[in-house]
Amino acid sequence: MTYLSHLRCSRCDKKYEANQVQTFCQTCQAPLLSCYDLAAARKHLDRGAFQTRQSGMWRWHELLPVFNLHSAISLGEGDTPLLLLRQIGTQYGLTNLFIKDESFNPTGSFKARGLSAAVSKAKELGIRKLIIPTAGNAGGALAAYAARAGLKATIVMPKDTPPSNIEESKIAGARVVLVDGLISDAAKFAGKMAQEEGWYDVSTFKEPYRTEGKKIMGFELAEAFNWILPNVIVYPTGGGTGLIGMWKAFAELQELGWLESSHRPRMIAVQASGCAPVVKAFMSGASSCEFWLNANTIAAGLRVPKSFADREILHDLKESNGTAIEVDDKEIVSAQNILASSEGIFAAPEGAATLAGLIKLVGRNEIHPDEKVVLFNTATGLKYLDHRYVS
Amino acid sequence: MTYLSHLRCSRCDKKYEANQVQTFCQTCQAPLLSCYDLAAARKHLDRGAFQTRQSGMWRWHELLPVFNLHSAISLGEGDTPLLLLRQIGTQYGLTNLFIKDESFNPTGSFKARGLSAAVSKAKELGIRKLIIPTAGNAGGALAAYAARAGLKATIVMPKDTPPSNIEESKIAGARVVLVDGLISDAAKFAGKMAQEEGWYDVSTFKEPYRTEGKKIMGFELAEAFNWILPNVIVYPTGGGTGLIGMWKAFAELQELGWLESSHRPRMIAVQASGCAPVVKAFMSGASSCEFWLNANTIAAGLRVPKSFADREILHDLKESNGTAIEVDDKEIVSAQNILASSEGIFAAPEGAATLAGLIKLVGRNEIHPDEKVVLFNTATGLKYLDHRYVS
Repeated sequence: MTYLSHLRCSRCDKKYEANQVQTFCQTCQAPLLSCYDLAAARKHLDRGAFQTRQSGMWRWHELLPVFNLHSAISLGEGDTPLLLLRQIGTQYGLTNLFIKDESFNPTGSFKARGLSAAVSKAKELGIRKLIIPTAGNAGGALAAYAARAGLKATIVMPKDTPPSNIEESKIAGARVVLVDGLISDAAKFAGKMAQEEGWYDVSTFKEPYRTEGKKIMGFELAEAFNWILPNVIVYPTGGGTGLIGMWKAFAELQELGWLESSHRPRMIAVQASGCAPVVKAFMSGASSCEFWLNANTIAAGLRVPKSFADREILHDLKESNGTAIEVDDKEIVSAQNILASSEGIFAAPEGAATLAGLIKLVGRNEIHPDEKVVLFNTATGLKYLDHRYVS
Repeated sequence: MTYLSHLRCSRCDKKYEANQVQTFCQTCQAPLLSCYDLAAARKHLDRGAFQTRQSGMWRWHELLPVFNLHSAISLGEGDTPLLLLRQIGTQYGLTNLFIKDESFNPTGSFKARGLSAAVSKAKELGIRKLIIPTAGNAGGALAAYAARAGLKATIVMPKDTPPSNIEESKIAGARVVLVDGLISDAAKFAGKMAQEEGWYDVSTFKEPYRTEGKKIMGFELAEAFNWILPNVIVYPTGGGTGLIGMWKAFAELQELGWLESSHRPRMIAVQASGCAPVVKAFMSGASSCEFWLNANTIAAGLRVPKSFADREILHDLKESNGTAIEVDDKEIVSAQNILASSEGIFAAPEGAATLAGLIKLVGRNEIHPDEKVVLFNTATGLKYLDHRYVS
């Protein structure tokens, strides 16, 4: 069913078996990436055939990591709308401005894609107990997929996580642990519980498959643009799963021979001024991030002081000729208002941050007027109601 | 583009032009329904062709009311997932239990479908100012589509409407008026403002096209079940737009020759014990509803003391060999917990009410174990966080 062949360490390239439970490369302390037999896939798969399948992420199952499609735990994730922003585009002189609206996923956030992949694979491998440290939305998504799969879930999150994330996790039957501190503190707690009580840790990039779910955003974009990738992708970057996943997708699409042009988008990472480790590292030319102290922003999903995949994020941004940019909470709230009042899209602060970042780039003449630009709204603004008026 | 030919009064059959602004039949005080040249459509349209189009409600544009597809105001509505409820089905002895999850619409609710149709048609007809009395979600949807269309919107809602509905309307730039009382009081206010200030009133069934958007839920079901309609549809019934719209869809599908069987589903209307005018009328064999006094339920969308289309609702239920059933708030909260913890679906109280209703029907042996049953989750539970613990 799948062309998955093995996993490899993203740094030392060491090979790992995909039919066993894996975490990350202990030697390098680095993420494992899924490898597919793309030569064989190229021979047997027709890119046009995917469009006629039942919609959703799993229509790409040959290039997702579960061995048997029956293992897929689905709540209808994927195939989110790609909307033209005509009014905002006109205002900023861009004729091809789009938003990929990921709020149309289960649990109202893009995290559903990664957790659908991770929970499906975990269940296939016989894992029964899943734990996650989270800034919010990934916790809600894990809780939902674990419920659907009949698995146990523990969600560890900062005590000031948006209430919606706490409630959605609880109602799905997950155990919720609130910690003093940030996602980094939650990660320590989860890591300890994983070791002591035998929970499987689905932290960003400490398990290999969440990024495979996110990868499909790249497949969907390629298909929507008739297999010519857009010029610019503006992506809110916390843990970086989506950014790395899409960059991986573009390489796979190239190897599959599905792209009409070898051109790749410039990847723009947007972070909040109150927590911008990737921006700081990118601007200084560093190849890894420093831990960001006293992280603070209304964009809860961007409150990630240091990603486990920091090197890969920086590598991909550079390889794409992209950049990293920071926006403050006031700019985020302003962009949130513009998106809602001009286009009817009530975006999460993280999603609105991509518009705020774009506005800055346009001001610096870094975007050509007719370039195809894709913003990402990663969740619904409905999950952040308590935070909307902070500025 | 569209096969729309005219409108007709749902009671006296009087014909109305569809290229002019219309409201309802003043003689009968009854809704107008859209009529299409289905004989011509049958000749030229191929049911299989719709599947290969770009996903969403507007892929059925020939059977929607706008004259020019460019008039369509879209935020990605429609083509929501139809999910098998394996665990709940097993628990209640049903092998073919599904939920159509309408929370995957813009603004997180099924109201997006109707308002996409209504705002599109209004804009096409040159209307600039829209007003709506609402129990909540329809207001949020109107605000979003009006913003996208560049039209003005006023939303009139009870002051105890869920805060999410108030916030989503405000951020989209709509004027929000909070009234003491219920949707019926909001309707009086809106009607007055419409008359005095020239706002166009998009109240349920006082404008003809919202039900056309909702109708597409019926088209999607037919297509998903390979053109053999399911046996039972359980639908939360406030104003009744979706119920009437789907019943209309099934008749149109029959006339188009697209159905593999002439069999139609039993339509089950679910209401809250605190506001059950349709249940009361249906049980007594009445052909219209009485105004329900002191309406009260956590399912805000079901707090509709009397629908403008009460006769049509009762007629369709009867014609379908269906029924109407009431559930109390405690049963709703319990069903909400079951859906979330067994299947990972955080449903709105209105959506959870359909499971609560089904559980009662199963208890009365009114559902055969292998019948295809479809529940409707009409919105995301995230919009009702303040209300979830009431019981």
